[in-house]
Amino acid sequence: MNTCSSISELQTILLPFRNTNRKIVLVPTMGFLHEGHLQLIRRAKELGDVAVVSIFVNPTQFSPTEDFSQYPRDIERDKQLAEKAGCDVLFIPSNEELYPNGYLTYVDVYEMNSVLEGKFRPTHFRGVTTIVLKLFNIVQPKVALFGQKDAQQSVIVKKMVRDLHLPVTIEILPTVREHDGLAMSSRNVYLTEQQRSDASVLFQSLQFAKKKIETGETNSHRIINEMKTMIEAKKDTAIDYIEIVDSETLQHLSTIEKGKTILIPLAVRFGATRLIDNILITT
Amino acid sequence: MNTCSSISELQTILLPFRNTNRKIVLVPTMGFLHEGHLQLIRRAKELGDVAVVSIFVNPTQFSPTEDFSQYPRDIERDKQLAEKAGCDVLFIPSNEELYPNGYLTYVDVYEMNSVLEGKFRPTHFRGVTTIVLKLFNIVQPKVALFGQKDAQQSVIVKKMVRDLHLPVTIEILPTVREHDGLAMSSRNVYLTEQQRSDASVLFQSLQFAKKKIETGETNSHRIINEMKTMIEAKKDTAIDYIEIVDSETLQHLSTIEKGKTILIPLAVRFGATRLIDNILITT
Repeated sequence: MNTCSSISELQTILLPFRNTNRKIVLVPTMGFLHEGHLQLIRRAKELGDVAVVSIFVNPTQFSPTEDFSQYPRDIERDKQLAEKAGCDVLFIPSNEELYPNGYLTYVDVYEMNSVLEGKFRPTHFRGVTTIVLKLFNIVQPKVALFGQKDAQQSVIVKKMVRDLHLPVTIEILPTVREHDGLAMSSRNVYLTEQQRSDASVLFQSLQFAKKKIETGETNSHRIINEMKTMIEAKKDTAIDYIEIVDSETLQHLSTIEKGKTILIPLAVRFGATRLIDNILITT
Repeated sequence: MNTCSSISELQTILLPFRNTNRKIVLVPTMGFLHEGHLQLIRRAKELGDVAVVSIFVNPTQFSPTEDFSQYPRDIERDKQLAEKAGCDVLFIPSNEELYPNGYLTYVDVYEMNSVLEGKFRPTHFRGVTTIVLKLFNIVQPKVALFGQKDAQQSVIVKKMVRDLHLPVTIEILPTVREHDGLAMSSRNVYLTEQQRSDASVLFQSLQFAKKKIETGETNSHRIINEMKTMIEAKKDTAIDYIEIVDSETLQHLSTIEKGKTILIPLAVRFGATRLIDNILITT
């Protein structure tokens, strides 16, 4: 595995692959890799001739009050895990490399960036789309892989790719979960033992919603209310949002219609730790 | 010359060139071609294996009160001129092709987009950077050519390319002028005979500024005031701005220092017609 931190080094490594038209596949991550990331890396290796993994805790997607400086990092462990999963090129740029002094350019997918997560994290998706666009331009992959856990991110990145005609295919892999259903997340290390145990309620509530819809419930409000009751039964929880939306437009659906793919995304705080999860349901 | 209006047609035309790693050069235009455009096209042919010219009057860079619907168009004449200048592929997309229903994505080069022209046309450069980025992604040129007449556009596009790491080189060609010095512009057809004759004062004022600086004047305010007096001596003129700025950062310079490249951009209305011009001076 090649490891590099500068864009020019990365270009030198990738040049022979570009010149021979080999298939570059990118997995953009913020590091502190878990099994969800590793499945993306294995898939990248399977799909492409070169699996590139980036590790960059992107400052522009954190607000000043969020956990940028506390975000968990363990580069040595990440290197070992990435290599074992099949990573060919590990790109670990510095902030200065990606946002040098005088940096001014940002991309926005409007409307979609201000609903759901965007209501609570107003500049988050601007940061996400900007860094993803930058990484796409630097790496020039044929395919880029993302996890379904960040559902809104996936929808927005796909929309940006379509709107800007980016020559890359986006593939989304299913959320990888712990034994009790909790979605894997680098932020799970923030949870106390009690919170960690309580947090499985998120998956349970999503499964509950799925069953309700499968057995004919069409009223979103009723489903969401029951999910809220389940989650609020746990101590120290605060629900930022639970919504039922169209899986492509992210538009609110008050009634669940047949033949649609719906997305139920949620964000819930357990003490100071904020977790997100979601489920896709084809009706 | 190949002419096409859909992105998929264009991709089919360009595919063999991409597959053999041939050099694609792009000249993005809004049509109604004049000698300035034709020099860009000739240069594209000289630089590359395939000269692609796009003609698209981009609605997102016009405000609702501006001349989008009146902007001069003559596609048949443009086709002939482009082919004669060496254009290999002429891409003439529709609005629906580039901004389909539900379009949401825009790119901004902040700070630079709100000074000079940006003060008078607040959403203009968002439109410019967005369409240029889209065209770069669609055509994937090695080089793209722009004219120095739109000085701020050139600076902003170059900044976007650097910030987003776009794999394209930007080359700026000098402004092409009429015999009396008026910068060529598709909008010159709006001018009455009197206005057309008066408009040469813009070039004269820029030449005057150059001479003043070459003979040791360092006070920007004094130079600008004398330029204003020259221009306002003509009937029916209104100056939107004349400024002396750093040619890379667009930041205002009150004192002209040795060893810098400075830019003097201006925008002046002759009746209802708004003209821009500029000069680059290396001190």
